[in-house]
Amino acid sequence: MTAPEAKPRPTIKDIAQAAGVGVVTVSRALNDKPDVSEATRARILDLARQMGYRPNRHARFLKLTHNPTIALVIKGIDNPFFQQMLDTMESIVRERNHLLTVVKVPHWADEVEEAITVVDEDLMAGVIFLGGSFTHDAKIFEDLHVPFVMSTVPRLDHVPDGLYSSVSIDDRLEAARAVRHLIDLGHRRIAVLGVPSTDESIGLQRLLGYRRAMADAGLDVDEGLIRSVPHDRSDPYTYEHGYRLAQALLSERPDVTAVFAIADVIAIGAMRAIHDAGLRIPEDISVIGFDGITLGEYVEPRLTTLVQPPDVIARLTCQILFDQIESGPAQHVFIPGSIRAGASTGPARDDGARGALR
Amino acid sequence: MTAPEAKPRPTIKDIAQAAGVGVVTVSRALNDKPDVSEATRARILDLARQMGYRPNRHARFLKLTHNPTIALVIKGIDNPFFQQMLDTMESIVRERNHLLTVVKVPHWADEVEEAITVVDEDLMAGVIFLGGSFTHDAKIFEDLHVPFVMSTVPRLDHVPDGLYSSVSIDDRLEAARAVRHLIDLGHRRIAVLGVPSTDESIGLQRLLGYRRAMADAGLDVDEGLIRSVPHDRSDPYTYEHGYRLAQALLSERPDVTAVFAIADVIAIGAMRAIHDAGLRIPEDISVIGFDGITLGEYVEPRLTTLVQPPDVIARLTCQILFDQIESGPAQHVFIPGSIRAGASTGPARDDGARGALR
Repeated sequence: MTAPEAKPRPTIKDIAQAAGVGVVTVSRALNDKPDVSEATRARILDLARQMGYRPNRHARFLKLTHNPTIALVIKGIDNPFFQQMLDTMESIVRERNHLLTVVKVPHWADEVEEAITVVDEDLMAGVIFLGGSFTHDAKIFEDLHVPFVMSTVPRLDHVPDGLYSSVSIDDRLEAARAVRHLIDLGHRRIAVLGVPSTDESIGLQRLLGYRRAMADAGLDVDEGLIRSVPHDRSDPYTYEHGYRLAQALLSERPDVTAVFAIADVIAIGAMRAIHDAGLRIPEDISVIGFDGITLGEYVEPRLTTLVQPPDVIARLTCQILFDQIESGPAQHVFIPGSIRAGASTGPARDDGARGALR
Repeated sequence: MTAPEAKPRPTIKDIAQAAGVGVVTVSRALNDKPDVSEATRARILDLARQMGYRPNRHARFLKLTHNPTIALVIKGIDNPFFQQMLDTMESIVRERNHLLTVVKVPHWADEVEEAITVVDEDLMAGVIFLGGSFTHDAKIFEDLHVPFVMSTVPRLDHVPDGLYSSVSIDDRLEAARAVRHLIDLGHRRIAVLGVPSTDESIGLQRLLGYRRAMADAGLDVDEGLIRSVPHDRSDPYTYEHGYRLAQALLSERPDVTAVFAIADVIAIGAMRAIHDAGLRIPEDISVIGFDGITLGEYVEPRLTTLVQPPDVIARLTCQILFDQIESGPAQHVFIPGSIRAGASTGPARDDGARGALR
């Protein structure tokens, strides 16, 4: 009112800064939405009046907060680990009065292109990418036009840090920890199961972790013990792939004493194949998984695995996305993993040369 | 053009009827969308011209087909059975150029009220309810204003058939089939695990099926063998609940020789408790599940279960919803289930009175 026209009119961000709150809070207060205390609402309305705020200029932002959908783009929706994260994310997004739209991307499709389509068709406040391998040129991310976070995706070497946010464990380091667990039990001929054959993302990182742990222990890597899922349009992370890989491994390499499966679902499929071959776990073969899905505590024997905490990752992912929606900077967070000891791993059997003796 | 103004102008439905196609096809043709053959498109455009069709009157419908989101309202999103259905539904909806918005409803919330909120906030073409117990007054469904289908939900006794569509197995009949499988193996003291204590939906139907199978075989129902999950805000269908119910059952009722779990996740939790008690499956206790999740084929021993086919149910659910969107009538479909024999069921042990002898 008293502000001269030459001075730019205040934006919702200016009010947020003056009030010491986020822009979403300001928007909620101005639009009479819930989840803002009466004191805060009164203070924001006062400030808006004092600063000469006029809402009409911010129609687009207001629209975003009115129809505030978050797109969750998932590769491998069948993975129980992602399910456990989805549950937490959905609750958090709901608490913040947003709606979560789950977009399932087939394993063979390009997740960023899918996200761009979804963002173009619908008004989205932000995007979470869950899983996937990102070998894109940095340029493609510029087409997204909304804040986004990569969750459980390794850092992208070819994309500047400031262009995206990420939350994940250090897949290479944690995979090395899992393999070291087997080495410490006396295992030497350790197979690795489930690396997608052309993978440049999580699968590759976990394989590099395996190589590092073997090298650190002075053990040669036997390339015949690295078993990859076929390169086709199917989801690589399934019980079925674990079953088939283990079945072939057991018949071709009876000298193996332990298996590192790069996902729990692969491990559970492999355990079925080991049972079917008439072998005992862990007396004949030890199995360690990766992810820490709840199911691992129910299978027989209980699965030893590298746990990445789904709740922590889900919460941080949402937190960072909402920070970015409120104009926060890009962030990169690594969460530590840990071994959950089950009954599927034990000391390497004495007759390590079982195969050689046959 | 030559049509006199007194005669009502043709709607998109009239063109659809004249062309012998659905209204979505007409809308796609008129709006130059994909998935319509060139021949069909040309025929529809010709008809529209001949009939004097003017698109502006149908702005709302056009908007619906332009932003054609289908809401999938799921109770119990962690259930792997629903996951297997979600995967199929997502593919079908995507093939038809719609977007699927997954809305997770907590177990304790009212799914119809949630759906009404979602439909009000966003423009939705239709709603699929997956799971849930519907004890509502028929009136609440009138507030939805869009076509909807109940999937894997029993028929609603108190709601007129014409008000809603449904796709499910006959839960009572199929549960009786599962229990009969145990009776045929010589089991008499059969526990039922996992009925939500205040359930009036699927859990109740499956319990009624258990009662019917026992009655048909001339067996008395021992109420102490009916084990319900506690009535609280948690999802009743979890591994954890199956574990706890079986643990209590085994310590209190050692005479039991078989368990009917009303969901596979309950069965898998129960199997863990049986292993932990040092008992063998099926030599000491037989276990039969319900649902037919993929995982059941990987646990040790393989789970015997009543399979409800997720792909068939998912496809029919989507088909009926799209029919209704194109103004088709309400439909009610029952899909047959079947027993998948695993290794978790076997003849009742001879010492049926194990408990009594102790």
